[in-house]
Amino acid sequence: MSVLDAATVRAAVGRGRDLDADLDRVSVDDRHRRLAARLAVRELDALWIDHAPDVRWVSGFTGSAGTVLATRAGGWLITDGRYAEQAAEQLAAVDAPYELLVAGPAERDRVLADAVGAIEAAEGAPHVGFDPDRLSVAAHGRLGGILADIGAELEAEAGVVGTLRRRKDVAEIQRLARAAAITDAVLHPLLVELTAPTGERASERAMARRLADAMIDLGADDVSFDLIVAGGPNGSRPHARPGSRVPLEGELVTFDVGAKVDGYGSDMTRTVAVGGTTTETRRRWYDAVIEAQAAGVAAVAAGVDEVLIDAACRDVLEAHGLAEFFTHGTGHGLGLEIHEAPILSTRSVGILSAGLAVTVEPGVYLPGEGGVRIEDAVVVTDDGAIPLTATPKGLRVV
Amino acid sequence: MSVLDAATVRAAVGRGRDLDADLDRVSVDDRHRRLAARLAVRELDALWIDHAPDVRWVSGFTGSAGTVLATRAGGWLITDGRYAEQAAEQLAAVDAPYELLVAGPAERDRVLADAVGAIEAAEGAPHVGFDPDRLSVAAHGRLGGILADIGAELEAEAGVVGTLRRRKDVAEIQRLARAAAITDAVLHPLLVELTAPTGERASERAMARRLADAMIDLGADDVSFDLIVAGGPNGSRPHARPGSRVPLEGELVTFDVGAKVDGYGSDMTRTVAVGGTTTETRRRWYDAVIEAQAAGVAAVAAGVDEVLIDAACRDVLEAHGLAEFFTHGTGHGLGLEIHEAPILSTRSVGILSAGLAVTVEPGVYLPGEGGVRIEDAVVVTDDGAIPLTATPKGLRVV
Repeated sequence: MSVLDAATVRAAVGRGRDLDADLDRVSVDDRHRRLAARLAVRELDALWIDHAPDVRWVSGFTGSAGTVLATRAGGWLITDGRYAEQAAEQLAAVDAPYELLVAGPAERDRVLADAVGAIEAAEGAPHVGFDPDRLSVAAHGRLGGILADIGAELEAEAGVVGTLRRRKDVAEIQRLARAAAITDAVLHPLLVELTAPTGERASERAMARRLADAMIDLGADDVSFDLIVAGGPNGSRPHARPGSRVPLEGELVTFDVGAKVDGYGSDMTRTVAVGGTTTETRRRWYDAVIEAQAAGVAAVAAGVDEVLIDAACRDVLEAHGLAEFFTHGTGHGLGLEIHEAPILSTRSVGILSAGLAVTVEPGVYLPGEGGVRIEDAVVVTDDGAIPLTATPKGLRVV
Repeated sequence: MSVLDAATVRAAVGRGRDLDADLDRVSVDDRHRRLAARLAVRELDALWIDHAPDVRWVSGFTGSAGTVLATRAGGWLITDGRYAEQAAEQLAAVDAPYELLVAGPAERDRVLADAVGAIEAAEGAPHVGFDPDRLSVAAHGRLGGILADIGAELEAEAGVVGTLRRRKDVAEIQRLARAAAITDAVLHPLLVELTAPTGERASERAMARRLADAMIDLGADDVSFDLIVAGGPNGSRPHARPGSRVPLEGELVTFDVGAKVDGYGSDMTRTVAVGGTTTETRRRWYDAVIEAQAAGVAAVAAGVDEVLIDAACRDVLEAHGLAEFFTHGTGHGLGLEIHEAPILSTRSVGILSAGLAVTVEPGVYLPGEGGVRIEDAVVVTDDGAIPLTATPKGLRVV
């Protein structure tokens, strides 16, 4: 039985507009317990955490410069004077088990050495883990030097917090759902206007701006990534930047849009036809992609090999003779980062589990001609995917 | 004689609203020549560059995933399928000397090995430099493995591109100046309204939003960092986040604001009094900081020890008995990153040179009470600092 059953997830998604602030306190406590258990399994006495989303996840601290040295019992958050007040408040707000240390660059090494010296090692000298994907070669050299001086040891341990962050808790799902609800609320009316047979047309950039403004008006902190509005031939670029071009009647326009709420981002893509109709060729692309996307979402459930989600999408496009134009992976996790573990592609080796939040976003891209992508974010449960995104699909949105 | 004399800088700042697109082509060519010369001095045959602002600076490519393997003669830009079209266009637009290689995760190692294999080494096996501050321990392991397989060697060489990027060229100064001009144009009217004896008052968040929107309306790509609007007690936090509080008559409000133009950010801070008057204590803080900031800017010139800019500000605050409340460094370089080399603080060891763009931003922060910070960005020349920012200073802006 999973921690997050489908009913709990549905309730959290449904409460997207009404966040439980108290849950953060529960979450951070639970997160530390999971982290401590992981340290015990890995025989580490402490973990060096300085990737900002990891720091935020374990401690609630949102500043741009902070490091957590987490032990099994608690640990420390080290930041500089610019963030002293904010860090104290944010740690207190979630009852984080980390003591605040404020140190400028000149005192940081000494403060750190003192903290490591205070760690109670399970046996002998403390073993301190670090993430080799996050720590730079230079920082590793400095940290290793400090630890060697006091007889502690540094050990590479990839993705400890990243792995814990895959499984979202209820507080996180509420925020993801609220971000998705805001995205739905702004994109839907724009698609209705754009796919109406007559109507004023705006440039890609103006549409992107309107979406961003409207999401912030609805309470988003920000957009969750640089919004994509790609019309006509620009649609052949999966990561196109919105330009001054005004899409023409009958062209396809791809919108890849997301909002951020309390640090959690949404991510959704829709492709529509300007004026509601298009050519036979473009309609074939569209039909293939929407069928592929539905197959991908239908394949999602706890216990399923991640690679099968990608395969489900790719097989449909293959059957339509379009597989060669699907030039990227099928999806990615999302949370405090807009692209986080797991990645769903032909190279995936993991297994989906309950509480993951992932996107399913096949597309086809024909250079010089255009493209189609359709993307939803879903939460994985034992009973299958529970969608976070709800904007209608169709070449025309009525 | 410096490359950038004061007259050239003044002309570039003056042309801030009228960018020379052709200069980018000249710039990228010049940048490659400077990079190649640096490689020769360091006895490197190639340099691995994957910090996004470094990649953009050498190649013009703005995507989120790209690596340049630069040789003395040219080299390669490696990106994935999502950016294939964009990278080809952007390399061509600036005539960058890098051949485009498109490779997904599965083919990347092989493509990279082929490229390294094609490097003409000055003697024996190619020596490939990497930035130990930017490359992760894990990426270093993978890259080292590939290179070892083909007999090449990996060598740590810190900040090669970062050092080159310190000195701005004319194209960059134009963009910095335009970003600063946009910031001036939006902040000034807001300060006039806010410091008028009567007037409607808005929340910190609403003011930040108005500034961001207005900058984008004037052609900014985006804000250059999360804008700070901190009123009353919130002013004691150098990195405060704008909240729902409406500043009261007589309180100080600090605005730290910047726009981004073609990737280049501006950065300016002003503190004003709501309604134009305040208490005697706050006025003393203000007078000390404005005197300190003027002393810092006056100290800036090519050939001056960087630490003296910080000392000039700190000495004034010391004389006013406020040095203990100045809890951060005095300034930082700015360009494609909002904080880049050099950092101006008590720990600086370098010497200012012509063409650097730096901020001078002393402040005082009294926890629970409030704070003052004043910041300008300037370009360093042999004749002293040429300011990029022009918004008037004063507790009241008339």
